[in-house]
Amino acid sequence: MKKLYGVTSAMVTPMLEDERIDRQGLEQLTTFLIDKGVDCLFPLGTTGEMFKLSVEERKEVAETVIQAADKRVNVFIHAGAMNTKDTLELADHAYQSGADGIGVVSPAFFNAGDVEIIEYYQTISAALPGDFPIYLYNIPQLSGNDLSVDVVKELAEHCGNIVGLKYSYPDFPRLSDYLHATPEYFSILTGADGLFLPALAMGCDGVVSGVSGVFPEPFVELYDKYQKYNLEEARQTQRAAGEIIKILQAGANMSYFKKALDYRGLRGGFMRSPQKTIPPEQKKAAREHIDTWLQEYHYTLSFDK
Amino acid sequence: MKKLYGVTSAMVTPMLEDERIDRQGLEQLTTFLIDKGVDCLFPLGTTGEMFKLSVEERKEVAETVIQAADKRVNVFIHAGAMNTKDTLELADHAYQSGADGIGVVSPAFFNAGDVEIIEYYQTISAALPGDFPIYLYNIPQLSGNDLSVDVVKELAEHCGNIVGLKYSYPDFPRLSDYLHATPEYFSILTGADGLFLPALAMGCDGVVSGVSGVFPEPFVELYDKYQKYNLEEARQTQRAAGEIIKILQAGANMSYFKKALDYRGLRGGFMRSPQKTIPPEQKKAAREHIDTWLQEYHYTLSFDK
Amino acid sequence: MKKLYGVTSAMVTPMLEDERIDRQGLEQLTTFLIDKGVDCLFPLGTTGEMFKLSVEERKEVAETVIQAADKRVNVFIHAGAMNTKDTLELADHAYQSGADGIGVVSPAFFNAGDVEIIEYYQTISAALPGDFPIYLYNIPQLSGNDLSVDVVKELAEHCGNIVGLKYSYPDFPRLSDYLHATPEYFSILTGADGLFLPALAMGCDGVVSGVSGVFPEPFVELYDKYQKYNLEEARQTQRAAGEIIKILQAGANMSYFKKALDYRGLRGGFMRSPQKTIPPEQKKAAREHIDTWLQEYHYTLSFDK
Amino acid sequence: MKKLYGVTSAMVTPMLEDERIDRQGLEQLTTFLIDKGVDCLFPLGTTGEMFKLSVEERKEVAETVIQAADKRVNVFIHAGAMNTKDTLELADHAYQSGADGIGVVSPAFFNAGDVEIIEYYQTISAALPGDFPIYLYNIPQLSGNDLSVDVVKELAEHCGNIVGLKYSYPDFPRLSDYLHATPEYFSILTGADGLFLPALAMGCDGVVSGVSGVFPEPFVELYDKYQKYNLEEARQTQRAAGEIIKILQAGANMSYFKKALDYRGLRGGFMRSPQKTIPPEQKKAAREHIDTWLQEYHYTLSFDK
Repeated sequence: MKKLYGVTSAMVTPMLEDERIDRQGLEQLTTFLIDKGVDCLFPLGTTGEMFKLSVEERKEVAETVIQAADKRVNVFIHAGAMNTKDTLELADHAYQSGADGIGVVSPAFFNAGDVEIIEYYQTISAALPGDFPIYLYNIPQLSGNDLSVDVVKELAEHCGNIVGLKYSYPDFPRLSDYLHATPEYFSILTGADGLFLPALAMGCDGVVSGVSGVFPEPFVELYDKYQKYNLEEARQTQRAAGEIIKILQAGANMSYFKKALDYRGLRGGFMRSPQKTIPPEQKKAAREHIDTWLQEYHYTLSFDK
Repeated sequence: MKKLYGVTSAMVTPMLEDERIDRQGLEQLTTFLIDKGVDCLFPLGTTGEMFKLSVEERKEVAETVIQAADKRVNVFIHAGAMNTKDTLELADHAYQSGADGIGVVSPAFFNAGDVEIIEYYQTISAALPGDFPIYLYNIPQLSGNDLSVDVVKELAEHCGNIVGLKYSYPDFPRLSDYLHATPEYFSILTGADGLFLPALAMGCDGVVSGVSGVFPEPFVELYDKYQKYNLEEARQTQRAAGEIIKILQAGANMSYFKKALDYRGLRGGFMRSPQKTIPPEQKKAAREHIDTWLQEYHYTLSFDK
Repeated sequence: MKKLYGVTSAMVTPMLEDERIDRQGLEQLTTFLIDKGVDCLFPLGTTGEMFKLSVEERKEVAETVIQAADKRVNVFIHAGAMNTKDTLELADHAYQSGADGIGVVSPAFFNAGDVEIIEYYQTISAALPGDFPIYLYNIPQLSGNDLSVDVVKELAEHCGNIVGLKYSYPDFPRLSDYLHATPEYFSILTGADGLFLPALAMGCDGVVSGVSGVFPEPFVELYDKYQKYNLEEARQTQRAAGEIIKILQAGANMSYFKKALDYRGLRGGFMRSPQKTIPPEQKKAAREHIDTWLQEYHYTLSFDK
Repeated sequence: MKKLYGVTSAMVTPMLEDERIDRQGLEQLTTFLIDKGVDCLFPLGTTGEMFKLSVEERKEVAETVIQAADKRVNVFIHAGAMNTKDTLELADHAYQSGADGIGVVSPAFFNAGDVEIIEYYQTISAALPGDFPIYLYNIPQLSGNDLSVDVVKELAEHCGNIVGLKYSYPDFPRLSDYLHATPEYFSILTGADGLFLPALAMGCDGVVSGVSGVFPEPFVELYDKYQKYNLEEARQTQRAAGEIIKILQAGANMSYFKKALDYRGLRGGFMRSPQKTIPPEQKKAAREHIDTWLQEYHYTLSFDK
């Protein structure tokens, strides 16, 4: 089955000033990331503001990315919703639309016990073809529910199409426990893009990274160097990645991502309320920090590969 | 302006086995709670599974409770949603439907900075009549965003119709800070029903309590004793309340609330997925614990006042 | 058996500039606090910098306070040390020196399991007369070990001379659990001086307060008003107490306590290294805040009762 | 200047049943670890129960290890104490006794602000020769004080003999920040022995590991494989290390370390109270788990290299 691996970009959802989805901006972003060499795409996750979009909007985003990607890279659509019915509808839609797989965040906001969580994922697993890959997605600091090692192990062992986990909290002892508790073929990616290199060294298959969806360059480079066992250089690149991550607020404010895309000549655009687009002075400061970073690490804003 | 005070019951949303809303169950529950003497009703909060309901369903629940209450107690509709557009639609609907006020949870799941949070509440405040009361609702352990003391103070001082705060995390130093930072008339209620008495002693106006929406008796009693300065007896009643809170899992699993309502002869019914109705053996054990509790503290399941 | 109750002042250990103990300053402080009406004294706790003193110094402090108090109030000596041998030596010394009882902090720094904790307190309990009262002392944020409700319950029920608990973390759900799990006669005091009033309302016997060892006035007043069921006025006094607590950094830096004592004409003096005496500009700012507070709440620096 | 690197064993302090130090056991342990190939020794840290020992006992342990090591590996004595005077005495003693360097834990138990922490380390730095290396030691979960990135950076840049940091909390984002904020030559070791490999990949110089002081074999192997860029095999060895770490309770109970040393034919012996030696049934279970582990990973209890 297809998997997520290497540099998997968690994509923003470009929006117009009136908060409607910018379909053209999204197509352009998809092409840009593939041209830059990322390995997989993960739209409609937290970076994609999924819970603020309607089911119809989420379908539109999914279709747009799948079509623009045109099978050049693996596209996994995030399909998790606030209730099971919407999740199933979005999962089925992703499958029907030609996605390579899906991701599903744990139940969010409302407490869910282990039994409820397992039943939730089993329901999704059973509703999809046995060869259509599903990733668990654990981001407990936002969802309020944590996928325990035992829950992940149980699902990895008993649901054939649950093939991996995206773990977006930077708890490395836990990450190590996930890796040790699951079968070799089970695929684990970290969402901590500042810790891409040590995660690879531990045995992760890659990173699901929001910043790589804006500045893919250092991430693609880091993965390349790592695969060539060039650890010393990979560490230097991780440092470069770490600095642009800080400049872009490490995913705490996706407006930084969108404005940086604008600065590159792409169209990130605006945020869906209640989140807000950063004001001009913050945008200006961010651009200056980006310029300094580009110079220090010899990157350019250019589209060219 | 109208306020929340005393025993404010956070109501469950009764559902049928197919997860549709049980309108009759909801009417019956509304009447029951008023008959039992609770001071205010707060449907469609966390206890009411709000984020799992569609906007249409939320309107239906709001209308049902408002009509069944028939102005006998203050009904504040929780209107907070995942995006601003839905929140505004629900807030306006509550107003149009005759609610006495609304509550709005902080932005959930996605990080929101203080500026975004303030702008969010200002937008809601400005969209409603100046004499229609709004409560802030802070439940950071689930929403992932915390309303700081400075944010609450700012909104309390500058938005005339923001009249209070429901604070559902049992951090008493913070609760004390809220009380000291806001004007005397600003109304603060705790969501920690096991700490109703000390919260009153500190200066809170009351409790917003999920368990009081199932067993209102000890809460109504406690508030009565407190108002008569009968602290020693109030402490005994708080202990009784504490025990039924533990039996009903302290709001960590609302199926306990629904099944206890069933046991009282009301209709709590089923949970909306991914949350699940507790299995028979857990239901049985809960009933036995309830029976022991009823006997020890001389309560009955009966409807009668 | 004697107990701690009401306003129990956690005393600083006055020191000279060369970090030696200021015995005269300590005698004067003891007299001052008793004259001001505090109910009990608790020297050599965290506020007293116990772990930085030698066993000999701790004995000197204990003797000084006991003698200066001269049986006018209950004096409980904190005897907990880094190892059991020192604790037993200090506990026995307190008993021999005429203390009314002792307190013993949980094992600190090194992890201790429940069995180890229970055995530790049992050893201390067995080494002292059956009618010599011992308080457990839980301050997990500093000691790294938390006394669970089960451990406290077990010790309360099985060790006749373990008569109470000082709980210095402001977790009110836990405080409520301690109160509900232990017998009526078991005495629980909060160490959260900003929450003295709600703790009393819940059923605590009093507060062990560092700030009351510098400005006892609002605490003594608050307790008096509470006992007269004058809750509204007690709330106002709690607010006054809350402000001086903030001015004195809430126990996070005991040099503020010592310098405020100096300002009152007493001798708090200097800190034992590595903690440092606050520099002149901070001292000056603190004095200005204290002056404002005195004026607003009509207190004076004066010694007189 | 000499540094800590590779496998640095945090040594237990062997004790007799009456809790006195077992000098012979300590000599034997020192020789054993050097024979097994560890790179450096770190006695008298948390694993060594330092705060429960008297100053005299700590000197005895330091001398014993330094003499038994006889310059075959770097020996850094942990010298941090509860007050500055004792720390300075122990640091000077380590220097006079021929230690290769020292480590000093942050101020413990009592809150220390950044200014106090910096002044503390500056005092120690100034009291020792400029070419005698000092490691900062941060274990905030036990000490209650956290060395911030800014504090570490400040000390790294301004105190010539402060050459490194032992960071014993497994927070990898923070570890990454330490690495990025300090000069290339500043030496950082993790105390998280289950994350030795990813820490090396990030740029750490090694691990300070308690479990390696009992079963050095997998740690020495892992470091060897890592240096040969054999990441895949290093990962397998990390897994083996991870399992013995869990069996030995990951440092939460050092009696497991001591009893495992006994099982190897060495003399770990007993704990200093209040910590207790594990009872026979736990010892038996641990031995069985060790046997299974030895078999699975092809290690033996044998002393031989």
